Amino acid sequence: MAGSSIGNLFRISTWGESHGPALGVVVDGCPAGLPLSEEMVQAYLDRRKPGQSSISTPRKEADQVEILSGVFEGKTTGCPISMVVRNTSQKSHDYSQIKDVYRPGHADFTFDSKYGFRDYRGGGRSSGRETVGRVAAGAVAIELLKQMGIEICGYTQSIGPVQINRERLDFSLLGKNPTNMPDPVANEQAMEYIGQCQLEKDSVGGVVCCQVKNVPVGLGDPVFEKLDANLAKALVSIGAVKAFEIGDGIQVSMTKGSENNDPFIKTESGVEKSTNHAGGTLGGISDGDCVEVRVHIKPTPSIFQPQKTVNRDVEELEIQIQGRHDPVIVPRAVVVVESMVAITIVDALLMNMSAKLEKVQAFYNR
Amino acid sequence: MAGSSIGNLFRISTWGESHGPALGVVVDGCPAGLPLSEEMVQAYLDRRKPGQSSISTPRKEADQVEILSGVFEGKTTGCPISMVVRNTSQKSHDYSQIKDVYRPGHADFTFDSKYGFRDYRGGGRSSGRETVGRVAAGAVAIELLKQMGIEICGYTQSIGPVQINRERLDFSLLGKNPTNMPDPVANEQAMEYIGQCQLEKDSVGGVVCCQVKNVPVGLGDPVFEKLDANLAKALVSIGAVKAFEIGDGIQVSMTKGSENNDPFIKTESGVEKSTNHAGGTLGGISDGDCVEVRVHIKPTPSIFQPQKTVNRDVEELEIQIQGRHDPVIVPRAVVVVESMVAITIVDALLMNMSAKLEKVQAFYNR
Amino acid sequence: MAGSSIGNLFRISTWGESHGPALGVVVDGCPAGLPLSEEMVQAYLDRRKPGQSSISTPRKEADQVEILSGVFEGKTTGCPISMVVRNTSQKSHDYSQIKDVYRPGHADFTFDSKYGFRDYRGGGRSSGRETVGRVAAGAVAIELLKQMGIEICGYTQSIGPVQINRERLDFSLLGKNPTNMPDPVANEQAMEYIGQCQLEKDSVGGVVCCQVKNVPVGLGDPVFEKLDANLAKALVSIGAVKAFEIGDGIQVSMTKGSENNDPFIKTESGVEKSTNHAGGTLGGISDGDCVEVRVHIKPTPSIFQPQKTVNRDVEELEIQIQGRHDPVIVPRAVVVVESMVAITIVDALLMNMSAKLEKVQAFYNR
Amino acid sequence: MAGSSIGNLFRISTWGESHGPALGVVVDGCPAGLPLSEEMVQAYLDRRKPGQSSISTPRKEADQVEILSGVFEGKTTGCPISMVVRNTSQKSHDYSQIKDVYRPGHADFTFDSKYGFRDYRGGGRSSGRETVGRVAAGAVAIELLKQMGIEICGYTQSIGPVQINRERLDFSLLGKNPTNMPDPVANEQAMEYIGQCQLEKDSVGGVVCCQVKNVPVGLGDPVFEKLDANLAKALVSIGAVKAFEIGDGIQVSMTKGSENNDPFIKTESGVEKSTNHAGGTLGGISDGDCVEVRVHIKPTPSIFQPQKTVNRDVEELEIQIQGRHDPVIVPRAVVVVESMVAITIVDALLMNMSAKLEKVQAFYNR
Repeated sequence: MAGSSIGNLFRISTWGESHGPALGVVVDGCPAGLPLSEEMVQAYLDRRKPGQSSISTPRKEADQVEILSGVFEGKTTGCPISMVVRNTSQKSHDYSQIKDVYRPGHADFTFDSKYGFRDYRGGGRSSGRETVGRVAAGAVAIELLKQMGIEICGYTQSIGPVQINRERLDFSLLGKNPTNMPDPVANEQAMEYIGQCQLEKDSVGGVVCCQVKNVPVGLGDPVFEKLDANLAKALVSIGAVKAFEIGDGIQVSMTKGSENNDPFIKTESGVEKSTNHAGGTLGGISDGDCVEVRVHIKPTPSIFQPQKTVNRDVEELEIQIQGRHDPVIVPRAVVVVESMVAITIVDALLMNMSAKLEKVQAFYNR
Repeated sequence: MAGSSIGNLFRISTWGESHGPALGVVVDGCPAGLPLSEEMVQAYLDRRKPGQSSISTPRKEADQVEILSGVFEGKTTGCPISMVVRNTSQKSHDYSQIKDVYRPGHADFTFDSKYGFRDYRGGGRSSGRETVGRVAAGAVAIELLKQMGIEICGYTQSIGPVQINRERLDFSLLGKNPTNMPDPVANEQAMEYIGQCQLEKDSVGGVVCCQVKNVPVGLGDPVFEKLDANLAKALVSIGAVKAFEIGDGIQVSMTKGSENNDPFIKTESGVEKSTNHAGGTLGGISDGDCVEVRVHIKPTPSIFQPQKTVNRDVEELEIQIQGRHDPVIVPRAVVVVESMVAITIVDALLMNMSAKLEKVQAFYNR
Repeated sequence: MAGSSIGNLFRISTWGESHGPALGVVVDGCPAGLPLSEEMVQAYLDRRKPGQSSISTPRKEADQVEILSGVFEGKTTGCPISMVVRNTSQKSHDYSQIKDVYRPGHADFTFDSKYGFRDYRGGGRSSGRETVGRVAAGAVAIELLKQMGIEICGYTQSIGPVQINRERLDFSLLGKNPTNMPDPVANEQAMEYIGQCQLEKDSVGGVVCCQVKNVPVGLGDPVFEKLDANLAKALVSIGAVKAFEIGDGIQVSMTKGSENNDPFIKTESGVEKSTNHAGGTLGGISDGDCVEVRVHIKPTPSIFQPQKTVNRDVEELEIQIQGRHDPVIVPRAVVVVESMVAITIVDALLMNMSAKLEKVQAFYNR
Repeated sequence: MAGSSIGNLFRISTWGESHGPALGVVVDGCPAGLPLSEEMVQAYLDRRKPGQSSISTPRKEADQVEILSGVFEGKTTGCPISMVVRNTSQKSHDYSQIKDVYRPGHADFTFDSKYGFRDYRGGGRSSGRETVGRVAAGAVAIELLKQMGIEICGYTQSIGPVQINRERLDFSLLGKNPTNMPDPVANEQAMEYIGQCQLEKDSVGGVVCCQVKNVPVGLGDPVFEKLDANLAKALVSIGAVKAFEIGDGIQVSMTKGSENNDPFIKTESGVEKSTNHAGGTLGGISDGDCVEVRVHIKPTPSIFQPQKTVNRDVEELEIQIQGRHDPVIVPRAVVVVESMVAITIVDALLMNMSAKLEKVQAFYNR
């Protein structure tokens, strides 16, 4: 319970610092029998790798995953899956100038205050590299969802002021566009905007949207373990996320009940909603509709302009950050968002199995 | 872990349905020695009581709290505090027409699907009345924060399109204005807007803002137990909340790093930030600044217009909800938001005590 | 996590002190659809009631249970079940002489040291009355096990030096014999032994055995959540328990592998063990055989002889306890042991449902 | 919560199988500032290594630990400590004959039933090698206890019928005697007894005792999180443990209250007990006295005699186990017992810090 684990039945524990020997994750509670290999996990890690375009850091992070436990003869065994990624590309000297200085927008000051210590070589535990563990665990969760027929799809919805246009959507662009926007025009506009910011030694934020289809009705509990509440926690736990929305999100505070309520209708497969303002949950429980969430991501705090700050001795000074930093982390965050959503939904999927006595009896052939 | 509890060291478990004999909460992990009485808790419950103005339901809910354990000679004992509120005003017959019908925007359908059952007399466990337990527990948390010099203040920021104006703020109005807006002009405009919606048999949403002052530096953990992540979960677990923001929230996706980063400065008391775009946390850990969060609340789903829906037999029909329902729940939700924020911060406060070995040694005089 | 809850999916939280207004329990995670009534729970509470024979305290504790939530139309709803028992018979003045004195064998000293406070009217939270909540929750668990075809049976195996004889077993005596021994001869011998101890103003201990039949294969996890480990915690958490055994228990340290290993055999229904030295678990997982555990209970610490002790001002003195105290709590502890065993097994039963992917797929019709 | 983690604030998660690439542990919640190195952890792992005498398996397990995170400049950082030990000595072909056969006394049958799978190369997750992770985590816990002035000492109390004699105790022998008995005579007798069993192709059990000195008063909570209850769970979670005792343990069921109660006395440092039948806890809370626990360990189930059993196809057959197996695991289990005790006590130490409001206020300088 000390902060590095999330989930109840499907529970992941990440560990590792940006400049330590390695990072990793232990996934406990994955059902036995899921096909899993290092190649499968690697594909997800490759999606968050930097150095793939002009807008992501030219650091080369090999990020090769090794599975150390929990898989036997190509399938999960029900035992904890331990996955490790070695750090290979840290250049500590890049960071030495900031050893005693608190970078604005970073966790340097709060971390130092809390623990009386700080890994001055980089973000340490608060680095974006921590998400390596999340994505490796997310790979397991997404593969498990696939086995259940559940599909997850994340994408960049906006970067700075550039929004995708719902009439130009082309999801085949995902993973090809450097922005991860499923809209070729917006992609180009965003690239231009980012390029301008880079010239200004500045950085930009954006919005990631994530949709999950074929979620069974019934996931989530009615009070604190609402599916949306757990999605909120999982997503706001990603470093740079400052806002969370489900369904119509912030719009609901402006609408009326007659606009916001989704009517139920009869379909071939049973009950459905004719609209989805709710975003796939009612009373915290999935309603069978597409689960749709959005997160707002702040601009990368590492900018190359001079900034005012203080050091550990509480002396005011000016800092100019060196090194290699993405002007925007939004495109690389997409797979992290997908991972956290998948981890949350898998957990809810397993938690839901004991909701009804008759289902428990059927499980045990009673 | 089955959904009705939240918190680690300061842990609350609510129970009860809108039309059962009673609702309540058990607060476990409250430190011994906190002055507490039924009168103190009652003051918070009275703030969420309906029937106090034209815009809240005329139901009379006495909502008298009884403390059954954990307090001795006027102080908490370290043992679980059990608090109970009897239901006195349910009129079951008001609800009988909806026995087999799924109300749009409510949890009827999802609850029935999950548990094979539904308390047709009202919202049951998914009713807003469940927040009685949250507010009773919140009272304990807020009183504990007071003993630590930490102040919490929630208010209505907007109702429908009506926003408060930061130049007209008057916090002395809170608890007196029916809207809980700290702005006399906005209050009147909002009342007018709500009145209009009532005539249309419709309902409206709004935004609640909550600020916490004097939060010590260091609360929250760097990865999944970020203070903001736990605030997000606690707040999105409130029934009608569809979006969560901290600090600049959704604005960050539009700004640049040079605008969003808060510079550190030296002050008499140590390190501070000269701005607070972050909303009081950095890397998930409180930075000593004001913690500021906002939630977006959907319009009350119970509206008096006819609505299309289906029943348990999957027959399409039209429903017209009767009974007593608030056209807007935002003003009454303010104390619920304060409660969930306080519960989250108290838990983080206690969790933080074991972060440094030297502090542990000092605690045990080593 | 603050000490008053146990279980993961089936999770109970007890509250209340011996001399407060009431005691109770919240059961969260009980599957929906279990028939449950106050009468059903009352039957279990009546089994732990004092005042039923010469060897239990003549206090009259009505111990009438009230179910405040979680049951609708005679069945559980999946929501938390809140059960309350009012305290009606406390005579505070009986205890006033011990206000500042630490009774030997009681928690007075440790409680006061930990919380800076002590409910001098009785044992407070550390009183045996706390088990009221355990038994009410145990009733739910045992009823749920019955629905799964699982039978639980606890009994007194020994009191002081008096042991039951396996050749005289008569389980129809349980609930009728004041000692709860299923052996008429041992019962009489034990009654005589206890009577002698009462004359000496002394108290006695004993052993409770509990057997569970028809436990499905597969409950419990391989490492820390072993079924036997959780049984050990649940049982040692009962106030006076000082030792726990499963299967051959302490005997195993004296035997050889060839004696201790249970051979597997083929039966009509599949695989079984021809002996059961293991007590129903292998590697922490139930093996389909009878689960058999035993606990060793210390003599009631409240004895009427003068005892040396100290008071809060650390002055040595002699205390002579007054009031009404059982000379032996073993017979009344039987239903408490059954309750804790049942709670543990129900939780393991629900936890086991997500162990295999193919079962998860079948559950969701994939 | 899926079975591979234990502890609340100080929480360990082990992973790994006997024949996979590696085993390890993640320790989350260790306070920042604890001196820690691979050498320090290695010393504990070396104590559980096999191949050190005629009575332990001649397998050479290098068991070199690597610390991958959570330590910076020689001290813990407050972040999770990930430790890995590579498996180097598995000879899979030794085990191939048992691929489809359930070994008596092992988890083969229950594991296969639960997960539909079994690592036929050895015990897999249920192997004694899993304790590598426990001991690495235990090293951290024991080092932390040292910093608090708390001393832990485990030893072999008996092997088969051979008991140590309290009049011959010589604790300097621990770590030198192959039996880990602090009694030179008993050590020789036990070695002789074990040798005889080896000739008979049989195995033996024994008892490990563990004492903890200078435990502060106040650790543990009054109800389910009793210190003794958590010790029971932690110790019974060790593979071969079948019974747990604290203090006088099983003896208490035979004694009278006047014998079992420990009188309080006044000493220079405050309140103490003049005897310690309780074993260091009262009402589940540490009383400042020596915490003393004992566990009863079954004989190694791998014996070289022919045994009756069945295979996966439920055919009866005879198995004769080959390979390298300890005739007794008790001596090597001592450090595992110490580890689990230390992990439990460290967790209780941290959990106790929020028990009193005045202490919380002092911590935050209020």
